[in-house]
Amino acid sequence: MPVGTLASVKGVPQETLEELGVQILLSNTYHLYLRPGTEQVRLLGGLHNFMSWPHAILTDSGGYQVFSLSELRKVSEEGVRFRSHLDGSSHFLTPEGAMAAQIALGADIVMAFDECTEYPADRQRTRESLELTLRWARRSKKYFEEHRHEVPWGSQHSALSIQPDEALGDPNETPALFGIVQGGMESDLRQESAQRTVEISFPGYAIGGLSVGEPRVLTEDIVAATLPHLPPDRPRYLMGVGTPEEIVQYARMGIDMMDCVLPTRAARHGLLFTSEGKISIKNARYAADNGPPDPACGCKVCARYSRAYLRHLYASHEVLAMVLNTIHNLAHYLDTMRAVRHSIKLGEWASSFSGVRSAPKP
Amino acid sequence: MPVGTLASVKGVPQETLEELGVQILLSNTYHLYLRPGTEQVRLLGGLHNFMSWPHAILTDSGGYQVFSLSELRKVSEEGVRFRSHLDGSSHFLTPEGAMAAQIALGADIVMAFDECTEYPADRQRTRESLELTLRWARRSKKYFEEHRHEVPWGSQHSALSIQPDEALGDPNETPALFGIVQGGMESDLRQESAQRTVEISFPGYAIGGLSVGEPRVLTEDIVAATLPHLPPDRPRYLMGVGTPEEIVQYARMGIDMMDCVLPTRAARHGLLFTSEGKISIKNARYAADNGPPDPACGCKVCARYSRAYLRHLYASHEVLAMVLNTIHNLAHYLDTMRAVRHSIKLGEWASSFSGVRSAPKP
Repeated sequence: MPVGTLASVKGVPQETLEELGVQILLSNTYHLYLRPGTEQVRLLGGLHNFMSWPHAILTDSGGYQVFSLSELRKVSEEGVRFRSHLDGSSHFLTPEGAMAAQIALGADIVMAFDECTEYPADRQRTRESLELTLRWARRSKKYFEEHRHEVPWGSQHSALSIQPDEALGDPNETPALFGIVQGGMESDLRQESAQRTVEISFPGYAIGGLSVGEPRVLTEDIVAATLPHLPPDRPRYLMGVGTPEEIVQYARMGIDMMDCVLPTRAARHGLLFTSEGKISIKNARYAADNGPPDPACGCKVCARYSRAYLRHLYASHEVLAMVLNTIHNLAHYLDTMRAVRHSIKLGEWASSFSGVRSAPKP
Repeated sequence: MPVGTLASVKGVPQETLEELGVQILLSNTYHLYLRPGTEQVRLLGGLHNFMSWPHAILTDSGGYQVFSLSELRKVSEEGVRFRSHLDGSSHFLTPEGAMAAQIALGADIVMAFDECTEYPADRQRTRESLELTLRWARRSKKYFEEHRHEVPWGSQHSALSIQPDEALGDPNETPALFGIVQGGMESDLRQESAQRTVEISFPGYAIGGLSVGEPRVLTEDIVAATLPHLPPDRPRYLMGVGTPEEIVQYARMGIDMMDCVLPTRAARHGLLFTSEGKISIKNARYAADNGPPDPACGCKVCARYSRAYLRHLYASHEVLAMVLNTIHNLAHYLDTMRAVRHSIKLGEWASSFSGVRSAPKP
């Protein structure tokens, strides 16, 4: 899922995202809550209408950004008090408030409000955080069930009247609320968090609190320890990963969904993901290189522009550098996931006689 | 002509320019001379190949930017010594050097090297500047005629091998060198400059040294005083104008070509040109406005996005604000010029029995 923090994948028009085959975007509740405000977006017909994106949208709960961006945050049983990173204004976010915000945004997938346990954290702190996330998950679900039909896209305020055309299954199941597993870097606590989150019952589950600074081998261990305790017939979403190699690896392990700012953020810093590995387009060696950014890529950037041109745009601080680099990196990620899906289908076909769902072997 | 200073119309991919119907771009020799270097562009197959733009390109001579941007410039009979605004390095630009640079860039229309007379300037200074520009025009033409066939697009260095597909008429006439009329704000000196430039003989003529801070009524007076002395069967190009109302007015007076950074630069500052006049999209009044930027515009921005969304993007410093605003403003300018051309054709049709070429009356 490409990240469109403030209702925009930085520099890329929605029609270009459609050309790339983007099926679902992630947007950040914390950022939209501060600017332009979730109530404002609701009055404008929800995110689908506001940003003219008739396809699926997942919103995070705001919790992660509160923990990573805001100042002077204070966590209590009730919720989190924090100051905006923009203007220092004081806000109080609760599980109920996070649900109301995401329903106002009109997300197709709403994330439960969780506490992202910091890294490193000791065992007692990890357990307390896990318990708080579970209590908040129950409160999230209760509020969500009572208010889920208050979606904004029937709003009379909407002039454009865009409605999501790719509701995930039965309209009665949209929006869907996903639970989030925490438990820090402790395998047994992850197992417990997963089991107790599944007991609450959600149509999908996320693994949160990873990719927060820990070594990658630890991330993999925790994912491996958690996955067996999440139902295989529900989407399993690993938050905040990763490199192209990592997303293939996690998909092999059984992860269905991932989001990451890496392809878009790296693009803005001149880093391109290609079939031959990462290249830093700002490098002087590309100044006279008339070849495409990635000879094996079929995206419209690689079809039209040279490394020399992209290097010139970057070195000259031209905005088009960000635009074209981002389009290419998204194409690379989406191609990677298309290849993963293709492999899974081949694997399912190969094992269809036994009727067992199977992911391709590494 | 949209302005693509550094071989890029800021924030807009070339394929989008093609969708908008852009037929010709202006690029700035001074900027490309400094970065990435005109010789570098030549080795990469010229601007057409470098920026993947198979349509027409006009390059300015570099003179205007030397006068407006560089530091410590010193004009002599031979040329201009100046320091780069980027790194303070010293350079010397002559009529011959400006021709060599533009031929290396592979421009379809090359501009003679001129001195842009500052405003205000007294009569003696204006005459001296005019005489220098005439001597430089003769040197420009001499060098150009001897080297015009050294275009870069047959270069073996080119991997992509893009060649201009819209050469302006006979390939033997591309590139074409245009002369530039100077003469400050003195009507009789403008007349003299025009007549003596026409005596040198060029396939097209530009009126330079206007839109440099003088009142608009003076600009119009000088254009009106100059035009009768330029042959009506050659393109007449007014440099550096203007607003949508101004370009219509100048076209009515008989101007065939114009360039201006206004649509693109204004877009980056949140100013949109619409059928209802200018609007500043950053204004809070648009925060809840679900209508299109311009209800009368058929561009892809107006077809898809709301004022509220564009306002949010601008207020949130999102790069997409610049991208979408620029696309809309270019569409508005191109639509304006399409309407002008349509009016001219109607006028020609109406007067076809008399065989007189006629521009529509105000």
